[in-house]
Amino acid sequence: MNSISDRQDTIVALSTPPGVAAIGVIRLSGKQAIDIVDKVFAGKDLTKQKSHTLHFGTLRDEDEIIDEVVVSLFVEPHSYTKEDVVEVSCHGSNYILQRVIKLFLKNGARLALPGEFTKRAFLNGKFDLAQAEAVADLIHSDNEAAHMAAMNQMRGGFSDRIKDLRQQLIHFASMIELELDFSEEDVEFASREELSKLVSNILRTVLQLIDSFRLGNVIKNGVPTVIAGKPNSGKSTLLNTLLNEEKAIVSDIPGTTRDFIEDEIHIEGVGFRFIDTAGIREAKDKIEAMGIERTKAKMRQASLIIYLFDLSQESIAGINKEVNVLENMGIPFIKVGNKRDLISEEKIKELHSIQDLAMISAGNKEHIEDLKKKIIEKINLEGFKTGNAIVTNLRHYESLVNTQKSLEDVLKGIDNPVTNDLLALDIRQALHYLGEITGQITTDDLLANIFSKFCIGK
Amino acid sequence: MNSISDRQDTIVALSTPPGVAAIGVIRLSGKQAIDIVDKVFAGKDLTKQKSHTLHFGTLRDEDEIIDEVVVSLFVEPHSYTKEDVVEVSCHGSNYILQRVIKLFLKNGARLALPGEFTKRAFLNGKFDLAQAEAVADLIHSDNEAAHMAAMNQMRGGFSDRIKDLRQQLIHFASMIELELDFSEEDVEFASREELSKLVSNILRTVLQLIDSFRLGNVIKNGVPTVIAGKPNSGKSTLLNTLLNEEKAIVSDIPGTTRDFIEDEIHIEGVGFRFIDTAGIREAKDKIEAMGIERTKAKMRQASLIIYLFDLSQESIAGINKEVNVLENMGIPFIKVGNKRDLISEEKIKELHSIQDLAMISAGNKEHIEDLKKKIIEKINLEGFKTGNAIVTNLRHYESLVNTQKSLEDVLKGIDNPVTNDLLALDIRQALHYLGEITGQITTDDLLANIFSKFCIGK
Repeated sequence: MNSISDRQDTIVALSTPPGVAAIGVIRLSGKQAIDIVDKVFAGKDLTKQKSHTLHFGTLRDEDEIIDEVVVSLFVEPHSYTKEDVVEVSCHGSNYILQRVIKLFLKNGARLALPGEFTKRAFLNGKFDLAQAEAVADLIHSDNEAAHMAAMNQMRGGFSDRIKDLRQQLIHFASMIELELDFSEEDVEFASREELSKLVSNILRTVLQLIDSFRLGNVIKNGVPTVIAGKPNSGKSTLLNTLLNEEKAIVSDIPGTTRDFIEDEIHIEGVGFRFIDTAGIREAKDKIEAMGIERTKAKMRQASLIIYLFDLSQESIAGINKEVNVLENMGIPFIKVGNKRDLISEEKIKELHSIQDLAMISAGNKEHIEDLKKKIIEKINLEGFKTGNAIVTNLRHYESLVNTQKSLEDVLKGIDNPVTNDLLALDIRQALHYLGEITGQITTDDLLANIFSKFCIGK
Repeated sequence: MNSISDRQDTIVALSTPPGVAAIGVIRLSGKQAIDIVDKVFAGKDLTKQKSHTLHFGTLRDEDEIIDEVVVSLFVEPHSYTKEDVVEVSCHGSNYILQRVIKLFLKNGARLALPGEFTKRAFLNGKFDLAQAEAVADLIHSDNEAAHMAAMNQMRGGFSDRIKDLRQQLIHFASMIELELDFSEEDVEFASREELSKLVSNILRTVLQLIDSFRLGNVIKNGVPTVIAGKPNSGKSTLLNTLLNEEKAIVSDIPGTTRDFIEDEIHIEGVGFRFIDTAGIREAKDKIEAMGIERTKAKMRQASLIIYLFDLSQESIAGINKEVNVLENMGIPFIKVGNKRDLISEEKIKELHSIQDLAMISAGNKEHIEDLKKKIIEKINLEGFKTGNAIVTNLRHYESLVNTQKSLEDVLKGIDNPVTNDLLALDIRQALHYLGEITGQITTDDLLANIFSKFCIGK
C-alpha cells in the first residue's frame, strides 16, 4: 500500500480531452479541494454549500476574470475518490484551461499523476483493484462487447466471484494453521476430504476464468481475422468494402468522430482485426510465388479465416476440394463465393448445394449483409453479450494461472500427504495470487505499474 | 428572429472535445430535457429534483447498462439557455458517448446544430448578440490579450456602450418623428444644437471603436511581424529561437498540449504572427537577386518589423544609414544587432550610442529577453490589458463603419438643413446599424451565418 502521506495533497487535472470545444472540465480531489477553488471563485462561499450542488460564478486571478464557470461540489465520502472533489466546468479553450489549472496550482494544488484519481478511489476503498482497472478498460472500449465486459467488471461481478472463492480458502488455511499449533497432538481441524472438494471446486472456476481469457482477449483487441483465397479472388476489394462501410457508420454522429484504426471493423458490436498477411497485401507475382505452407503459416495466426472463391472461375468440385484442405487446418473459417454478379442464376442455384457458402459481390457491395451474418454466427457470440465474468486483463490471467498451479500443488499435497506446513504454504500461495487480482494483496510497484497506464485526469 | 417553433425541440450534443479521456459531457436543452434523461436514468426520479443539483446513477438502454454517470440539472430559467438543461458526465470513451447520444435521440431529442445552445441563449434573452459572439471568441482565444478582449465583450462591457449610445439616439429620432406629425405647425421638439452635439459625441465613440479594430484584429489574429535584414544576418536562427522557446513554455502542463501554430509566438500574452516573406524563407541567391523595392513590399504587409544587423560585419555608420531607410518607411520597427558574441566588449560599448538597439546572439539564445522587452514596448500594449472596449469582430467593424457614414449624413443634414423626413431616415439608418451589433436588429440569415461558425455543443 502507498503511504497515506501521498494522499494529503490536493490533486488537479484536466479530465476532458484537450482541444477546442464548448466546455472543458478540470477536477480536483483532496482535503483542500473546496478551499482552493473557493479562494479564487467569486459567486458564493463554496465552503458552506452542500454536497452534490452546482454553483455558477467567476474564477479570478487577483483582479483578472479568467472565466465564467460552473462548479460541481462532491463532499467526502460521496465522491469518486471518497475525498472532497470539485469539478470546474470552464469554456473549452486550451488557453483558459491552462490558466485555470495554473491558478489552482498557485493556490496549493499539485498536478495529478496518470490514474491518480482512480488510485485514490482504490486506496480509499471505493472499489477493488480489478474494478479500478475496468475503469481504464471502459474508457478505451470501442465496441459493444468490450464495453459490456468492462462495465460488468467495473460493477464488481468478476471481483465478487474471486473474493468469495478466496474467503472460503482462507477458512481452510486458518484451520490448517491451527493444526500446526497443535502438531504434537495429531488433531485434524480441517477435513482433508472437504478441503479437497473445495480446492477442486475453486480450481474448476479458476480454469473457467482462464479459459474465458481467450474470449476476453478477443473482445478487448478484436478477433484476429485473415482474408485468404487465390490470387484475384477479390481479397483487397472485400477488405475495402468492409472498412468503408464501417467508416460511414462511425462518422454519422457529428462531433463524435473517433480515431479510426485501419484494418479494424465492428460487426454487431464485435471488433475484427485484420492481420496484415502477405496474401492480402503483396503484389500478384509474390503471391503466386508463395508456397502453400507459407500461406498456411499466416492463416494459423488468425482466429477466423474468411476464405474467398472466385465464382466465375471455380467449379463446385474445386471449391469442395479447397474446403477439405481448410477443414484440416482446424481454424474456424467462412466460405465466401465472390463475383456472384458474373455468374448465371442457374449456377447460383447449383452452388447452394455447398453448405454455408456466402455468395457476394465485393466490388458491387452486394450481399455483404449475408456475409456479416455468417461471420457473427461462426464466431459463436453467445458468450459476448451475457453478464458472464470474462477475464480481459493479462495481469489477471497471469495471476489466475499462478493460482491454478498452487491449487494443483495443494491437491497433490492432499493426495500424497505432505507435512501440514508445506500444505499451508501452498494454500497461502494460492491466496496470494487470488488476492493480487482484486488488490487485497498489493505492492507499490504493482500499483504504480497499473495506474501509470491510465490517462491523466482519471 | 427565428420562429419559436424551432425552440420547441430538445437538443443534444457532445460538449467536450472528442477523444479518450476521464470524462466526456453530453448536454441537452429544451422542454423535454429532464424527462428524456429521466426515462433512461436509474438512480432517482430526476423530474422531482431541484435545480443546480448533481445525481449519480446508471444510464440504461432497456436492460443494458450503458454507463455510470453524474447528471447535472439546471431548471429553466436558471441555465445557460434559460431552458431546462441537463449535462450528463459520462466516462470519456467515444463508444460510450456515441451510445449515450443515440440513446437520447431514440428518446425524443434531436442533434443540436452548431452554436444552437448559444443561439437559444440569445433568443431567450440571456445575452445580446455581441456577447454571444464573444463566447465563440473566448473558446478560440489562445493568448492573454485575446482572452481578455473576449471576456470583456462576453460580460457586456462593449455592448452596454453601444446600447447606451443607441438609446440616446432613439430619443432624438422619436422627437424628430413627432415633428413630422406636426409638420404644418413648424415646431421643433428636438433641439438641432443638442442633436448635433449628441451625434458628434456618438460619432467620436464610434470612431474610437472603429480605431480599436486595428488593435482588436491584432489581438485576435496576432501582430503581423516580419524579420528582415541582410543575408546571413541570422533571420531564420532568430525565428527558430523564438519559436522553440514558445514550444517549451506551451508544453509544460501535461494533458493541455494545444495545436501549435507554426510561426506564431506569444510574448507576455500577445500573439505575434510571422509573415512568411521571401526574406525569411528563400535561399541566399534569391535574396541577393531580390531588389530593395521587393523587400520593401513584403515589409509593408507587417505591423512590426524586426530588423537584424550582423554586428560582426556592420559599422555604426552602416547601421545608422539603414535605420534612416527604415524610418522613412513609416512602419514600427525594432533594431536588433545579432552575433554580439562575435564582437569585442569595446565595440558593444560603442554600439550603445545607437538608440534602442537590442544586442543579442540568436544562435546562443543570449539576451533574447532584452529583445522581447523591446518588442512589447514598441507595440505599445497599454491598451491590451485594460478593460477597454475593443472591437475584434469584422461584422461589428462593418456595422460601425456603416453607422459612421449614417451619422455623418445626419450631421450634414443638420448643418445644411434637409427636410425632417430625410433627417429621420438617416437617424433610423444609424440606429439600424448600431442595433445589428447587439442583435436588437437581426435577421434569420444573419443569425444562421453567425451561429453556424460555432462548434457543435456550444
